[in-house]
Amino acid sequence: MSIQIYTSQRTELIDISTYVKKHVTDSGIQEGICIVSTNHTTTAIIVNENETGLVADILSLLARLVPEKSGYLHDRIDNNADAHLKAMLLGNSESIPVKDGEMVLGTWQSIFLAEMDGPRKRIVDITVIGQK
Amino acid sequence: MSIQIYTSQRTELIDISTYVKKHVTDSGIQEGICIVSTNHTTTAIIVNENETGLVADILSLLARLVPEKSGYLHDRIDNNADAHLKAMLLGNSESIPVKDGEMVLGTWQSIFLAEMDGPRKRIVDITVIGQK
Amino acid sequence: MSIQIYTSQRTELIDISTYVKKHVTDSGIQEGICIVSTNHTTTAIIVNENETGLVADILSLLARLVPEKSGYLHDRIDNNADAHLKAMLLGNSESIPVKDGEMVLGTWQSIFLAEMDGPRKRIVDITVIGQK
Repeated sequence: MSIQIYTSQRTELIDISTYVKKHVTDSGIQEGICIVSTNHTTTAIIVNENETGLVADILSLLARLVPEKSGYLHDRIDNNADAHLKAMLLGNSESIPVKDGEMVLGTWQSIFLAEMDGPRKRIVDITVIGQK
Repeated sequence: MSIQIYTSQRTELIDISTYVKKHVTDSGIQEGICIVSTNHTTTAIIVNENETGLVADILSLLARLVPEKSGYLHDRIDNNADAHLKAMLLGNSESIPVKDGEMVLGTWQSIFLAEMDGPRKRIVDITVIGQK
Repeated sequence: MSIQIYTSQRTELIDISTYVKKHVTDSGIQEGICIVSTNHTTTAIIVNENETGLVADILSLLARLVPEKSGYLHDRIDNNADAHLKAMLLGNSESIPVKDGEMVLGTWQSIFLAEMDGPRKRIVDITVIGQK
């Protein structure tokens, strides 16, 4: 199952936990895993706390580790090398357990699409595997 | 299946390979995958070599890339922004193949719970999926 | 299923998308996921764009974040601590959805084995799980 997300900033984190939880419930899978992944090379999937300050800290950290327009070779072709590099550091997928028909997320865990080169229309894949 | 780990330092790596291997064997799954994941936003799962010097190097690298108390916004709410940021860089889950009823780990590979904000009681989920 | 790769540089990215796609098709799995993982502690799996400049940018970023021979403790035992640290940051596995019998990769996505301590013979595991 795929969901479409319209991002609105160049870099932002979009909490998609509600969509993922609903899809897990709808799937009817009782015991298994849910894999959340992206189709793009300038987005990533992360799992962490949805607190406004922390979300800003995450984007600041990425901007510090991978500053924009720092002489990257890829910028000669497409002016977004930093976005690819940030997405690569974060990773393209996360796997979350499913137990008793529900996704097992800790109290403070949210699932985010990390947009590194928006605003754009983005697709997130949610795949649930296991036993009904 | 979940295991509980009591960590003893603020930041440390705990080798959980033995627990994971045993759970894969006990599951009876012959061909598939094992997903190791954490329920927390200040821990991560990594796979690398369990050598004392390297473990110290990993913690030093994280402390260098994400120094503590560097004006993070999240520190106004909960004084552990660096722990969230480090956990996020490492990632929340790893997937390991299962073949002939056993987890396929390379000679030098160990599975670690990475504690970034201990000491605490932590939960690690081990999910095995595939064919018996 | 495992594939063998002979790497030729100390650090390089090897596009293995063709192998992974073929294995997914051959598996006969129609709906599920494909997990690509490595058996080594100085390699990683990443998914991003196969553009020559970007590939060089990725290796440069890793060399900047984790410089070689910077007093790492592991270098006293085996002179490759930076390779372990880089591989750990990138992560050991990625999961890609399978739909209608084919791997769902975005237009710009390629799957790479990231070699951080070559040249060596390397093994990549490709595991496909789901419904036929």
